[in-house]
Amino acid sequence: MLFAVRMDVDLPLDLDAQFRDELLATEKAYSQKLQRAGKWVHLWRVVGEYSNLSVFDVADNGELHELLWNLPLFKYMKVTVTPLAQHPSAVAG
Amino acid sequence: MLFAVRMDVDLPLDLDAQFRDELLATEKAYSQKLQRAGKWVHLWRVVGEYSNLSVFDVADNGELHELLWNLPLFKYMKVTVTPLAQHPSAVAG
Amino acid sequence: MLFAVRMDVDLPLDLDAQFRDELLATEKAYSQKLQRAGKWVHLWRVVGEYSNLSVFDVADNGELHELLWNLPLFKYMKVTVTPLAQHPSAVAG
Amino acid sequence: MLFAVRMDVDLPLDLDAQFRDELLATEKAYSQKLQRAGKWVHLWRVVGEYSNLSVFDVADNGELHELLWNLPLFKYMKVTVTPLAQHPSAVAG
Amino acid sequence: MLFAVRMDVDLPLDLDAQFRDELLATEKAYSQKLQRAGKWVHLWRVVGEYSNLSVFDVADNGELHELLWNLPLFKYMKVTVTPLAQHPSAVAG
Amino acid sequence: MLFAVRMDVDLPLDLDAQFRDELLATEKAYSQKLQRAGKWVHLWRVVGEYSNLSVFDVADNGELHELLWNLPLFKYMKVTVTPLAQHPSAVAG
Amino acid sequence: MLFAVRMDVDLPLDLDAQFRDELLATEKAYSQKLQRAGKWVHLWRVVGEYSNLSVFDVADNGELHELLWNLPLFKYMKVTVTPLAQHPSAVAG
Amino acid sequence: MLFAVRMDVDLPLDLDAQFRDELLATEKAYSQKLQRAGKWVHLWRVVGEYSNLSVFDVADNGELHELLWNLPLFKYMKVTVTPLAQHPSAVAG
Amino acid sequence: MLFAVRMDVDLPLDLDAQFRDELLATEKAYSQKLQRAGKWVHLWRVVGEYSNLSVFDVADNGELHELLWNLPLFKYMKVTVTPLAQHPSAVAG
Amino acid sequence: MLFAVRMDVDLPLDLDAQFRDELLATEKAYSQKLQRAGKWVHLWRVVGEYSNLSVFDVADNGELHELLWNLPLFKYMKVTVTPLAQHPSAVAG
Repeated sequence: MLFAVRMDVDLPLDLDAQFRDELLATEKAYSQKLQRAGKWVHLWRVVGEYSNLSVFDVADNGELHELLWNLPLFKYMKVTVTPLAQHPSAVAG
Repeated sequence: MLFAVRMDVDLPLDLDAQFRDELLATEKAYSQKLQRAGKWVHLWRVVGEYSNLSVFDVADNGELHELLWNLPLFKYMKVTVTPLAQHPSAVAG
Repeated sequence: MLFAVRMDVDLPLDLDAQFRDELLATEKAYSQKLQRAGKWVHLWRVVGEYSNLSVFDVADNGELHELLWNLPLFKYMKVTVTPLAQHPSAVAG
Repeated sequence: MLFAVRMDVDLPLDLDAQFRDELLATEKAYSQKLQRAGKWVHLWRVVGEYSNLSVFDVADNGELHELLWNLPLFKYMKVTVTPLAQHPSAVAG
Repeated sequence: MLFAVRMDVDLPLDLDAQFRDELLATEKAYSQKLQRAGKWVHLWRVVGEYSNLSVFDVADNGELHELLWNLPLFKYMKVTVTPLAQHPSAVAG
Repeated sequence: MLFAVRMDVDLPLDLDAQFRDELLATEKAYSQKLQRAGKWVHLWRVVGEYSNLSVFDVADNGELHELLWNLPLFKYMKVTVTPLAQHPSAVAG
Repeated sequence: MLFAVRMDVDLPLDLDAQFRDELLATEKAYSQKLQRAGKWVHLWRVVGEYSNLSVFDVADNGELHELLWNLPLFKYMKVTVTPLAQHPSAVAG
Repeated sequence: MLFAVRMDVDLPLDLDAQFRDELLATEKAYSQKLQRAGKWVHLWRVVGEYSNLSVFDVADNGELHELLWNLPLFKYMKVTVTPLAQHPSAVAG
Repeated sequence: MLFAVRMDVDLPLDLDAQFRDELLATEKAYSQKLQRAGKWVHLWRVVGEYSNLSVFDVADNGELHELLWNLPLFKYMKVTVTPLAQHPSAVAG
Repeated sequence: MLFAVRMDVDLPLDLDAQFRDELLATEKAYSQKLQRAGKWVHLWRVVGEYSNLSVFDVADNGELHELLWNLPLFKYMKVTVTPLAQHPSAVAG
């Protein structure tokens, strides 16, 4: 079951540099683990913004919430969720 | 080069039924031709709305505009375009 | 899997009275069939508006879209969907 | 008398960890007491956000305000209240 | 129990003049009956707009909805409801 | 001459407790003096929010501005002013 | 007593040309009579829009409402009213 | 050439009192010099807000920007500029 | 003196085809005459929308308003004007 | 390939003066290098705001994102990107 998710990141300007680096490394590892597991199926950068547009493939709403809530950057993000369905004109199923 | 495109359709309530059916058939054929050509790479229905979220893969801005401008439903749609780029955490290139 | 759905109805002012009555009767029957089937689990009127706030319990995004898309009043509505999950402080499961 | 209430929580990023844990424990206890008393009749997490959608069943506007104003997290929340009424198509009273 | 209600009227430009006059007379009579009954306790014109700001005193949400839904101008209005409570600094109870 | 005024209070989270208590006591005294003087004719709490909806009766725009500008909480508030006039359907003058 | 008033005009596209000319001539005469009477003290065109920014000098809210309500173009306008007061840094009284 | 300019001031709550007084005195002197020079032709307080509505008369866009950019309060303000033109119904040129 | 101007076109869906063609030809001729005169210095299509982003170089606000007001498509457009000035980091004057 | 980019700068009020001067000098040098390289083809100040309207000419979305992401002021800016295409009425290619 697919969901589009837009994440807009807003890090505090005075975040400690080392903490920030570790945080971003943790976020990257977390994201890549979910990508490899087939949960986080698309991840694109929005041009000119500290934001991404993503697509998740999950079993249900609860799983999606757990994945997002546990994002290392969650408390620094605005997250917008859009449930998706099969489009009748889509060639691929 | 990728672009996210959201299309919100607003057909007039009194559209002639036959005209509407033909219009939608033309739209579907147009969309599927572009999907098969690898230009319209994702097409999802937004749940509960007469809208889709799509991703296009085009050579440049001009090509994207031509594809969208010539949509049979273009005059009945609000179209929102978001340019995308490679995300540094994306596993796939 | 639960979703909150708000529906804002906007009937054309010049809708034929008989057509309108039949339309509303069909909508009511459609809604009550889904309520009895346990799919449309809550239906409340928003005070002072031609709107409702509802909760649906469905198997997945696709089922929710089908139920909403086939509402007899769908073309006269603005529909807003909010995916819900279990809250950690909720007493009931 | 029913009201839908959406609560969007925005904790300061630098909140002391112990204070935060106690605050959340107090909030949870407060919420569960009201749920058990039949005042706070539904509590759902909004997927991907630090927010909930709730339904309260109270005697009047004044009681609702007292319950919300005394939420331990009240000063960290944006609260949106929507009065609800019986819907003519609702199967359940 | 008090509610602030703002009503923004938007009559069709081509409304038949006689129908419009009768409609407005019916609305006025309806409003004055509720004012005299102590249900519609304040009614002010918003300066420069075809709008009013009102305060209703009703037994519950359901009664308020019935009063508003049956306004002769209801289908030509946007209605915004704000539940009110006693303010701790108010001199009058 | 009447004006509706909505005040949305946003106190800093780290305001000194004693300062806060004194500030609120001063605000309450200021408000009640104006209420007793017949300037601040209605004061209602907006349910679920740190906000009030008020009605002022003043000689002119300048007097209203002075009353609002000198509110002890003014610098912590967002104030929205709506000029009111006699409504032609109002029973009371 | 001064008020800033912005008027955004939205004439129906199919308005009869003669009716439109007469309407605009009536509006112009009405406006100029108020300007000469010292009620409508400033009238500027907003560049690129069918809108004006005006300043009115009236005895009270009620007079302003009467002047605006009776504008020949009133039913084709969105009107926004902003009450003004003497600024402490203004050189002129 | 005329421009309407709205300035919304937002001073930090913890601004040093002496600094604030000097800043406001400098702003007032700057404003009055421009008013006397015939550049800042109107200055009104917006009732109930720390805001003003002004009209500037300048040679061109560049001059307006210089005047605004050098406001002592510029970094504490949100500034909104609306270009104005002669209105065909204006009695005064 | 430069102004950015965005024009969003909204033609009625039922516009007569011949009228529409003539209207668009007139608009194009009008635009190209101003481009050749050095008044309309940039004209770009906004990708995926019936909109353009333009830059005008005019003597003053009044000239800009005249040019825009006389656009053949003016009554079918929403026009947004942004005054521009020399940027201190711009290499070209 | 052209993109309009609007940048709204919001520097912290308490930024160290020397750091600020160096930051702005770095930003200016970065901008001018891109201007001379033909990537940043227009740069205008928005009148009355700490903002610019720019046009970039880049090979693709990815290049635009890199240029913007590496702006020295990036973390202090809100950036809005609008893809542009050739307009059929443009005289210049």
